[in-house]
Amino acid sequence: MAEEKKLDRREFVKCSCAAGGGLLLATPMGALAADTPKENVKSRGYAAIDTSGKLVPWLFERRPVGDHDILIDIKYASICHSDIHQEKGHWGPQKYPQVPGHEIVGIVAAVGSKVTKFKVGDRAGVGCMVNSSLEKLDQVENQEQYTPGTVFTYGYPEKDSPTGISQGGYATNIVVRDHFAVHIPEHISFQEAAPLLCAGITTYSPLMKARLKKGMKVGVAGIGGLGHMAVKIAVSKGAEVYAFTTSASKVQDILGFGAKEVIVVDDLSKLAAYQGKLDYMISTIPYQYNVAAYVALVKPYGTFCQVGMPERFEVTLNALGLAASRVNFNASLIGGMKETQEVVDYCADHKVLPKIQIIRAEQINAAWESVVNKEARYRYVIDAATF
Amino acid sequence: MAEEKKLDRREFVKCSCAAGGGLLLATPMGALAADTPKENVKSRGYAAIDTSGKLVPWLFERRPVGDHDILIDIKYASICHSDIHQEKGHWGPQKYPQVPGHEIVGIVAAVGSKVTKFKVGDRAGVGCMVNSSLEKLDQVENQEQYTPGTVFTYGYPEKDSPTGISQGGYATNIVVRDHFAVHIPEHISFQEAAPLLCAGITTYSPLMKARLKKGMKVGVAGIGGLGHMAVKIAVSKGAEVYAFTTSASKVQDILGFGAKEVIVVDDLSKLAAYQGKLDYMISTIPYQYNVAAYVALVKPYGTFCQVGMPERFEVTLNALGLAASRVNFNASLIGGMKETQEVVDYCADHKVLPKIQIIRAEQINAAWESVVNKEARYRYVIDAATF
Repeated sequence: MAEEKKLDRREFVKCSCAAGGGLLLATPMGALAADTPKENVKSRGYAAIDTSGKLVPWLFERRPVGDHDILIDIKYASICHSDIHQEKGHWGPQKYPQVPGHEIVGIVAAVGSKVTKFKVGDRAGVGCMVNSSLEKLDQVENQEQYTPGTVFTYGYPEKDSPTGISQGGYATNIVVRDHFAVHIPEHISFQEAAPLLCAGITTYSPLMKARLKKGMKVGVAGIGGLGHMAVKIAVSKGAEVYAFTTSASKVQDILGFGAKEVIVVDDLSKLAAYQGKLDYMISTIPYQYNVAAYVALVKPYGTFCQVGMPERFEVTLNALGLAASRVNFNASLIGGMKETQEVVDYCADHKVLPKIQIIRAEQINAAWESVVNKEARYRYVIDAATF
Repeated sequence: MAEEKKLDRREFVKCSCAAGGGLLLATPMGALAADTPKENVKSRGYAAIDTSGKLVPWLFERRPVGDHDILIDIKYASICHSDIHQEKGHWGPQKYPQVPGHEIVGIVAAVGSKVTKFKVGDRAGVGCMVNSSLEKLDQVENQEQYTPGTVFTYGYPEKDSPTGISQGGYATNIVVRDHFAVHIPEHISFQEAAPLLCAGITTYSPLMKARLKKGMKVGVAGIGGLGHMAVKIAVSKGAEVYAFTTSASKVQDILGFGAKEVIVVDDLSKLAAYQGKLDYMISTIPYQYNVAAYVALVKPYGTFCQVGMPERFEVTLNALGLAASRVNFNASLIGGMKETQEVVDYCADHKVLPKIQIIRAEQINAAWESVVNKEARYRYVIDAATF
C-alpha cells in the first residue's frame, strides 16, 4: 500500500493546492458548471483493511462532485472512539478498505453548480453524515441522523462511491452534499473545531434537550473526547458538573475544565454518596458497564442519557435498579445539522474548546491504542498535510 | 413432606376457622393484648425446595403477631410469573424451603395491640411487601417498594421469621405489618381481588404516571396476567389500546377486554406498521426480548415502561435503536401502598376485573408450567382451602 501511495502522489498536487492558507481564490477545480463532465475525485488517506485496528496509507477515489456537493480539502480530522469500534467490527461486519474519520474540517475547493450554501475558499466542517437519498432536506432539518436515506460518513453503502461505501475523513479531501457541511467561523482554529463535529454535537444536543440551568447538577460519566466536551459545555451553561472517571490522572485536568467535583470510580462503591443527587446525567462510556449503578445517581424522574455506543450498540440495564431509581433512560445519536452549526458557533463564540493533541498521519495507529487505553488527553487531531 | 402435612393438619383448624364467611366475629385469636406472650404462627402451604420449579406441601411457622401486625387467614392466592422466576433462581440464589405468592387475600384473624387500621373479620389483601425495619412509614407512603428496610413477601431476610426469610401466600395464613395490607371492598370477590395485589398495581402505577387521557394510544406488550390487566385498566381510562402478543389464540379474549387492535407478533416485522405511532407503551414481557424494536413503536419523546422482570432482571437495549426512537425508557416495580389501595378500590368500583381460573393447591405445579408455556388465561387463583 505504501508503494501505491508514492506512485500516485503527484495526482494529488492539484487537489492539495488549496491546503495552504485560510482563504484562497477559486482554483481550476472551483465552481463546476452543471454540464462539467463528472470525474471521480482522487484522495489519499489512511484506511482499515481488516478488523485489526491497524490502518495503512491508501490511495482511493471518491464520487464526483455533484450539483449539490462540495469538495473539501481537509486540514484536520480528529480521532473518535467510534472510528475504532467501527473499523474493528464491534458494531457489525465492515467492508474494507475503509477510511474512518467523522470530525473533519477544511477549505472548500470546489462546489457543484447548484450549491449556494458554500463558495470556494469557505472554511467548512463535516461530521457523521455526508449525503442523503432524499431530494429535499428542509423537512428533516435537525433530525437528519434519524432520517432514512441519510448516508453516514464512512462504511455506509453509497452507490456513487467508486468503493461502494462512503469513505471518511482520515484523508486529504472529501466530497459532501452541501447540506451536511457546516461553516467554521474565523474565530476558532481548524484544529479545535474538528472535535466539535462529533464529540461536540453528540454531547451538546442532549445537554440542550436537558434545558440546563444555572446551578443544575449535571453528571458526566466517562471523561474522554466526548466527556470532556460535555463537562465544558455544561459548565459554560452554568451547571454544577460532577465528573465520573476511572482515570485518577485526569482529575486536575477535569477540575480545570470547570467541574465542581471529580469522582474517581475505581470501585462502584464510590458512587454511593451521589445516589439520587443529580438532576441529569450523560454517559459517554463506550463499553458495557454497570448502567443501573450510574443511573441511580439521578434524582427520581430525572433523565440519564447514553451517548457512548458500546460493542454491538448493546446496553444492558438492571430493570429492578432502573425501577428503583425511577429515572428515565434514553440515548442520543450526534445531532441534526442545524444543531451542528449551532454547537460550532456556540463553542467558537464562548471559547468552549476541546483539549487536543496534534498528530501526524503515521501516528494514527499509536493514537488509537492510546484512546483504547484511556491515555488520550483528550482528542487526537490529525494534521491532514501529513497524509 | 406430604406425610408431615397430614400429621399436623389438626393444628390448623383453629387458624382456619375464620375461613368460612365474609364477615365473622372475633375468634379466640382476635385482638392480642400488648403483653400476650408472642408465639410463632403455624402455617401450611406449598414451598419450593430447590430450583426445579416443583413445589411441595410444607408445614412451617411464621413470626408471631407483633403489636403492629395482623394475621390473615388466606382465602385465595394467585400465581404470578415472578413466583416462578424467583423460585427457579432466575433472579439470584434462594433460601429453601420457600413459599412463594404475593397476590394474597383473606380475612383478618388477629390484630396486634397497636393496630388500628384493621379489625378481626376485615377483608384484607397483601401484595409484594409485608414488613419494614422502619418504625414510621408515613414518610414513605407510596414509595415503600423503593425504600430501604422494606421486607418483600417471600424469600427476603426477616429476622423474626423462624425460617429466617419471609414466606409468601401459597399458604393458609400470613402475618403482615398492618401498613402493608389493604382493605378489600365488599363489592369485589376475593378471587378477583387477589391478582390486583401484584398484576393490578404493577400496571396501574405506571399507567397512572402516564396520565392516560381519552383517545391516547397506549401499547401493551405481553398479554398475560399483568398485560391483560394493563389492557383493561387503560381501556377503562379511555385509552385506545394496542395489544402485542405472541399468542394468536388470545386475540378474541383481548378484543373482549376492550383493546382496539391486537397484533400477533409471530415475527418482529409485524411491528413495522406501528412504528412511532403510540403515545405510551408498557411491556410486561418477563423474558429477554428485542426491547428496542418495541420501544420504536412509541412516538419521539414518549415513554416506554418495562414492568416485566426478566432473568437476572436484565434488559438489553440497542442504544442506537433507542437513540433513533428518541423514546424515554424506564421501569416500574409494583406500586406504593397508597396506590395499592387505590387500584383495588378503582377496580372494584369500575368492575375492572382479572380473568381468572380457580385451581386447587395440588394443581400449582401444572399451573406453573402453563404460565411458562403461555397457556394461562390469564391468572391462576389458588383456593387456599385446598392447602
